[in-house]
Amino acid sequence: MAQTYRGAGVSPGAGYGPVKRLTREVPQPAPDARHAGDAEAEARRAVAAMEQTAQDLTARGERAGGEAAEVLSAQALMARDPALADDVRRRVGEGADAARAVSEAMAVYRDMLANAGEYLAARVADLDDVRDRIVARLMGAPIPGIPDSDSPFVLVAEDLAPADTAVLDPAQVVAFVTREGGPTSHTAILARSLGLPAVVACAGADAIAEGTMLLVDGATGEVVADPDPAAVEAATAAAAARARAAAQSTGPGRTADGHPVPLLANIGGPQDLPAALENGAEGVGLYRTEFLFLDRSDAPGHDEQVAAYRAVLEAFPGGKVVVRTLDAGADKPLAFLPAPAAEPNPALGERGLRMMRRFPETLDAQLAALAEAERGTDAELQVMAPMVTDAEDSEWFAAVAAKAGVQQAGVMIEVPAAALRARHIAASAAFFSIGTNDLTQYTCAADRETGGLGRFQDPWQPGVLDLVAVAASAAAEAGRPCGVCGEAAADPLLACVLTGLGVTSLSMGASALPLVRAALARVELAQCRAAADAALAARGPEEARAAAAAALPGLAELGL
Amino acid sequence: MAQTYRGAGVSPGAGYGPVKRLTREVPQPAPDARHAGDAEAEARRAVAAMEQTAQDLTARGERAGGEAAEVLSAQALMARDPALADDVRRRVGEGADAARAVSEAMAVYRDMLANAGEYLAARVADLDDVRDRIVARLMGAPIPGIPDSDSPFVLVAEDLAPADTAVLDPAQVVAFVTREGGPTSHTAILARSLGLPAVVACAGADAIAEGTMLLVDGATGEVVADPDPAAVEAATAAAAARARAAAQSTGPGRTADGHPVPLLANIGGPQDLPAALENGAEGVGLYRTEFLFLDRSDAPGHDEQVAAYRAVLEAFPGGKVVVRTLDAGADKPLAFLPAPAAEPNPALGERGLRMMRRFPETLDAQLAALAEAERGTDAELQVMAPMVTDAEDSEWFAAVAAKAGVQQAGVMIEVPAAALRARHIAASAAFFSIGTNDLTQYTCAADRETGGLGRFQDPWQPGVLDLVAVAASAAAEAGRPCGVCGEAAADPLLACVLTGLGVTSLSMGASALPLVRAALARVELAQCRAAADAALAARGPEEARAAAAAALPGLAELGL
Repeated sequence: MAQTYRGAGVSPGAGYGPVKRLTREVPQPAPDARHAGDAEAEARRAVAAMEQTAQDLTARGERAGGEAAEVLSAQALMARDPALADDVRRRVGEGADAARAVSEAMAVYRDMLANAGEYLAARVADLDDVRDRIVARLMGAPIPGIPDSDSPFVLVAEDLAPADTAVLDPAQVVAFVTREGGPTSHTAILARSLGLPAVVACAGADAIAEGTMLLVDGATGEVVADPDPAAVEAATAAAAARARAAAQSTGPGRTADGHPVPLLANIGGPQDLPAALENGAEGVGLYRTEFLFLDRSDAPGHDEQVAAYRAVLEAFPGGKVVVRTLDAGADKPLAFLPAPAAEPNPALGERGLRMMRRFPETLDAQLAALAEAERGTDAELQVMAPMVTDAEDSEWFAAVAAKAGVQQAGVMIEVPAAALRARHIAASAAFFSIGTNDLTQYTCAADRETGGLGRFQDPWQPGVLDLVAVAASAAAEAGRPCGVCGEAAADPLLACVLTGLGVTSLSMGASALPLVRAALARVELAQCRAAADAALAARGPEEARAAAAAALPGLAELGL
Repeated sequence: MAQTYRGAGVSPGAGYGPVKRLTREVPQPAPDARHAGDAEAEARRAVAAMEQTAQDLTARGERAGGEAAEVLSAQALMARDPALADDVRRRVGEGADAARAVSEAMAVYRDMLANAGEYLAARVADLDDVRDRIVARLMGAPIPGIPDSDSPFVLVAEDLAPADTAVLDPAQVVAFVTREGGPTSHTAILARSLGLPAVVACAGADAIAEGTMLLVDGATGEVVADPDPAAVEAATAAAAARARAAAQSTGPGRTADGHPVPLLANIGGPQDLPAALENGAEGVGLYRTEFLFLDRSDAPGHDEQVAAYRAVLEAFPGGKVVVRTLDAGADKPLAFLPAPAAEPNPALGERGLRMMRRFPETLDAQLAALAEAERGTDAELQVMAPMVTDAEDSEWFAAVAAKAGVQQAGVMIEVPAAALRARHIAASAAFFSIGTNDLTQYTCAADRETGGLGRFQDPWQPGVLDLVAVAASAAAEAGRPCGVCGEAAADPLLACVLTGLGVTSLSMGASALPLVRAALARVELAQCRAAADAALAARGPEEARAAAAAALPGLAELGL
């Protein structure tokens, strides 16, 4: 019989498949576990589990590629170590059952590794993972970590961390369901970047039995166990319609009645350009430049910076490229600047522009490289500062940018005070770009990285929409563009609401562009405005979503 | 010649006196420092410095009392240790100068302590402090830590931490000046609680030479070195007038034209009642209940809680007592609940009501004790939840409070989303209390504990005033009271502006009550409203202060 669970839909689409659960529980053989008597058969069982684990790790490595492949093939070698197998056989011969023999034999290795200097000690976690996998296999327990499968499945977990998903085979996952998390959690961001449906903050989800057939609606947040076939068919049809609509959407972003909403890509470096171009990005709305500065002992030189910026500008002749200046802080320290003091709350600390005001040479050098990169290309360069808090910040940034030869200097609106006082900031900022992730984090005082606060990490919170409305109105009055470059822009329904609030461009991870383009093409500007009014009148995020959807009937065919 | 420095005035009043600087630099004798040849005289010099240090520590201990006295007298014993003196004499006999001999002899002690188990190892910092004091005395260097003095002085520092000020003799300090810090920094809070003028975020201040005569204006933020006598006289006269006005202010809080603004006290437990009553508090606007729950292994019992609450209720017959339910979180964990997960930004984490929603039994028990405590007293009990974010939170809290028998359940407005959506929250909250410290922290995304962000830790930031205005209007429309219980209420000028914004009561540290009462008595409600409008129109905190002061001419005689 069908049972329904409810959570927050954070990546639209329908997924249907058997549950596989991510587990972090490590199986523990009893310290005195003995086999039934046939030592030879037990030893064969142990060695077979070791070999199967090795094969499994090798196969995962081949699928993952890159650095993960190296780690995984090193792990496979551990599982196949003949000396280890000999030790296991000896222990089984003395009466230990296979799981205990493996566990004890590997404990000896572990101690050796742990005491063998820094490099090898770092491999202890890899060895532990190998042991857990072999032992779980021998005990018939779920294998800890991300489940492996030859056929599609719905991944169900308490929450997902980047480490969990590094070796995930996206081709086999049809949907994500987690008990914790919010719209800006790693699960949500990963799901959207893979174009997979996801429901987070779903109470009871992580207790659904392995193998249960699950229908996941990433738009409504509904999760149905053992659904009836008609429901599966309807959901699958809607998802197919959505995929078709996305595939057919082309050209620049605009509403059905022709109101242009340029659709731009968020990128982390030139390596993200192919996906942006493939998905029809009209430019770049957020070029994060941290990759040039972090994890290195020296500041990047002028030529290196110019090359990295120019590569992006040249990819969009005639288009717009918005570059965010370095956003570093106590949680993302730069090796070539004095170490910042430890901060109890780095998200509320000296980050972004606040840090650059203490080290203006680094900012000056970046701005000079940006101005130089623009010369000789015909893209439109816009440069913006992160963590601008008030008009004084904006004026300071505009002055240093102008001095460095940057024509258009704008600001990120991600601090509530900046949104509230956007009318004062507009005097010195050439444009706004609203960072809805941080704006939501600060407005609701809810850390994006803390599980269990999902309700407050939702850009549909009406208080957040209030601040978007204030900033967009101030921009319009001053005749300035006002984009959105947070995760909110990637939600097709919210994209229409943002347009209705007066946002003038939307920037997102490239894979989200086609569906947002398709959504905009199905609604009129007046409907977007009505949806925005309806969302602003709502008391909470769910009510806001429902009210907006009701005002945008054209999106129904997309299942939104 | 007079030289002027400027910072942020965070505690009004004028202070004039010679500079003493807090230094954290530790004097280091050269590793080969030798005396001139007279070993006996040098040894006498060393032992005299040890004895003087011991006397100094004992005297400080007597002044400080309590736990600090114990630590300080233990330190005095270290300085007087005869075995240490013998070792110093021996080293001087071998040629070391006095400072080096003390430093080396104490290094031996230090190693012994550090290796002698957990309890003694914790004393190493105390021993280091003793060594630094003796060595500094011998080298003629400033003694690290808070300066000691027999006569009044202006304390100048980079910043002040609670540990620095634990043994401060407030009778000898006439003003504080720091280079870092903001209106909610420890320096500012301490200064206001002591009624001393303070200027923070004062560039160049910590380089002013020891002994320079300094005139500090804690209202304007002006700091003048070597001022002319007329300026000192004028400032001193204004401070005296202010003190007189404060001393003469009596009765309930009200404006000159009779608009009542109840003036309440912020307290941390029954021990704060005498000061509240002495300063004419009309009730308690913020009763922090953490003291009952933190630093203990078990939850406080029903009777213990009832007694602690009833003691406060009985102190205000017919008055109002607003109790805040437990505000714990990852940075203030409770030993009797499961340890919260470490959070990268605890201020944005699962704290306050968010945490209590996970452990409702603890909240239920507190609410039941509060309801019980009210019975048999005739104070008006109001109970409020911290970290309420949206209407759903408020509805949940109102329901559990009603179930426990609490009549009036309200909410803290300290999260920007709650202020923005106060109109929705008002439906379920009996009252609002705006916590301006946290509201400022979140609105400006600036940690109260991070130095160097003073400009953003200022409740005069117009964005913060916007949110106060939104919350107060929503309360008025719903017919609900709306108090302020953050540091903003203790600023006499801002208190008038808050009144103009529609705030209906003000709660503050008890020592700030008389001057706020005097300020309100000198202005009319219409002037407060005009001042509020002027502050809201300002582009930044300084402009807001100046505009408000101009609209409130009645405060000029208080030097505000």
